[in-house]
Amino acid sequence: MATEKTLDDLFLDTLKDIYYAEKQILKTLPKMSKAAQSAELKAGFEQHAAETEVQIERLEQVFELIGKPARGKTCDAILGIIEEGKSIMDEYKDTVALDAGLVAAGQAVEHYEMARYGTLKTWAQQLGLTEAVTLLDATLQEEIATDKKLSQVAKANVNQKAA
Amino acid sequence: MATEKTLDDLFLDTLKDIYYAEKQILKTLPKMSKAAQSAELKAGFEQHAAETEVQIERLEQVFELIGKPARGKTCDAILGIIEEGKSIMDEYKDTVALDAGLVAAGQAVEHYEMARYGTLKTWAQQLGLTEAVTLLDATLQEEIATDKKLSQVAKANVNQKAA
Repeated sequence: MATEKTLDDLFLDTLKDIYYAEKQILKTLPKMSKAAQSAELKAGFEQHAAETEVQIERLEQVFELIGKPARGKTCDAILGIIEEGKSIMDEYKDTVALDAGLVAAGQAVEHYEMARYGTLKTWAQQLGLTEAVTLLDATLQEEIATDKKLSQVAKANVNQKAA
Repeated sequence: MATEKTLDDLFLDTLKDIYYAEKQILKTLPKMSKAAQSAELKAGFEQHAAETEVQIERLEQVFELIGKPARGKTCDAILGIIEEGKSIMDEYKDTVALDAGLVAAGQAVEHYEMARYGTLKTWAQQLGLTEAVTLLDATLQEEIATDKKLSQVAKANVNQKAA
């Protein structure tokens, strides 16, 4: 069948999924930064918002490389992850455990992104999209670094304060 | 305030979140195994279903260690991640790209679990729950191994077939 879906379709669908997700994350990070109590965590979320803007531009470059318009597609996963983060912000507002909860919410976001960028990078390799591999890997490495940084922030002070 | 929420509350809330998530995953894995085209991927999902049953028992042991009844709490994140997996099963049914999509869906699930178990393990350490740390770490290592195995299955044959 000429119309059968292949890895190209899956790559494009997943690109749209993470493009939508990144835009949702970009909207959410300032709220997390505002909610955070520790200066270090506030700064971490702000820095990741700046990174996210660049990550969105990289995705737009990947859309261009495959000759498709940059468009998002509703991503239920990130909406659910963000919803859980909002519950933390509400339920733990003004408590000593708030920052620990915000770190956990941030790490759930990072892990979703790591899964998607890891998959997209592997598929781009398979499809011979060399420039896309470089762009997707750059973001993947940033997500891994952000996840590690959140762990460090938590271990250094946030969790002790919460306990 | 005596009623202020602390890391104990956050630990319990997150334990309920992943307990609910694991039960949803246990219901979903047989559907993913049934849908998968490659025998290796089918077997992988079946094996992970067996592992998931043990992981649920470990969570019940952790509830017992902290003297709380084992109860789940709706986890929007896993519902969203599973919903995306179902879309893949529908939209890529009978196509060469189905298995590649199923691997991606499985890895999104694994990454969510890695985030939650990593967080719970760190909090258990902070709270001095030594036995809980061992139980949570055992599951965390299984999730990391499953994620790697899915990558290997994809690289070995699934992605080539899909391209």
